[in-house]
Amino acid sequence: MAYPGYGAPGGGFPGMPPQQQDPLYGFFSQVAGQDGQISADELQRCLTQSGMSGSYQPFSLDTCRLMINMLDRDMSGTMGFNEFKDLCQALNGWKATFSSFDRDHSGTVEGHELQQAITTMGYNLSPQAMNCIMKRYSNHGRIPFDEFVSCCVRLRALTDHFRRRDTAHSGNASFQYDDFIQVTMSV
Amino acid sequence: MAYPGYGAPGGGFPGMPPQQQDPLYGFFSQVAGQDGQISADELQRCLTQSGMSGSYQPFSLDTCRLMINMLDRDMSGTMGFNEFKDLCQALNGWKATFSSFDRDHSGTVEGHELQQAITTMGYNLSPQAMNCIMKRYSNHGRIPFDEFVSCCVRLRALTDHFRRRDTAHSGNASFQYDDFIQVTMSV
Repeated sequence: MAYPGYGAPGGGFPGMPPQQQDPLYGFFSQVAGQDGQISADELQRCLTQSGMSGSYQPFSLDTCRLMINMLDRDMSGTMGFNEFKDLCQALNGWKATFSSFDRDHSGTVEGHELQQAITTMGYNLSPQAMNCIMKRYSNHGRIPFDEFVSCCVRLRALTDHFRRRDTAHSGNASFQYDDFIQVTMSV
Repeated sequence: MAYPGYGAPGGGFPGMPPQQQDPLYGFFSQVAGQDGQISADELQRCLTQSGMSGSYQPFSLDTCRLMINMLDRDMSGTMGFNEFKDLCQALNGWKATFSSFDRDHSGTVEGHELQQAITTMGYNLSPQAMNCIMKRYSNHGRIPFDEFVSCCVRLRALTDHFRRRDTAHSGNASFQYDDFIQVTMSV
């Protein structure tokens, strides 16, 4: 899903590097400063200032840490602008999915709606796995946007890690203990 | 580690069921009510009232949910008194470990102290795994007690799940995708 206004025809200012023509770059560079990298609390500020959580509660620091880890290709613990752009794209997709289930605009969805959302995103999970996820993320049966995103980040990162180890595409993967801890404790 | 006062000689009142002689039972039954089970927000209240977080910040709802999932043998999403007692025992151990590293009583430990604490608890992890854990839990290099406990809960639960699947004790375990998601998304 495209960021609103991103990729609109005719945008940008001639003579500026392409990166700086991106409306997201302003929010990012303001927070990132000289090193061009943002940490979890800087990401929190960046997402709040760019209005990425919309009318929902701002993202918690914990969710911001998960977001950085999900895309942290160089294992630096921080996020560059390209990773930030990838994140915004994923976030817009998750926001659209969440909104479509939050029909009464309460800022929360119900457990069974979280299940439907996960299925909509293409995950094929058993009722047992869905139940685990629901229990982990719902509070008295409801899931706020921040927790929904936290769930999506982890589901995506864990599935990616699993897929990379399931080289035969058999739906089965083998882990050394230390590798298992690295994969599961990082998100 | 024993709960202070728990198991002291000569304790208890004759004629009362053994459970009700336990000092923890008062805190638990007050919150649990009729069904004898507590949910994550009730656990949060219970741990705050029983002073289990000591002089540290009260546990977050998220950490309470993790604690319930770690010990949730019947997959009910709630916690009975026996599970609560097991939790208090584990918590006292983690509090003692944390305190021994938080020498200046700031309520936080540093990243390298978290690593030492994990080693002290008997985990044998590579520098890479330690680094993943540090990045996930530290904020500007420091880890508060609540996050430390959250880390301990997840490390213990994930190691238990792994060990149960490593039937040959080879340090290697195989997971079906759905099972992997159940294990990793529940904590």
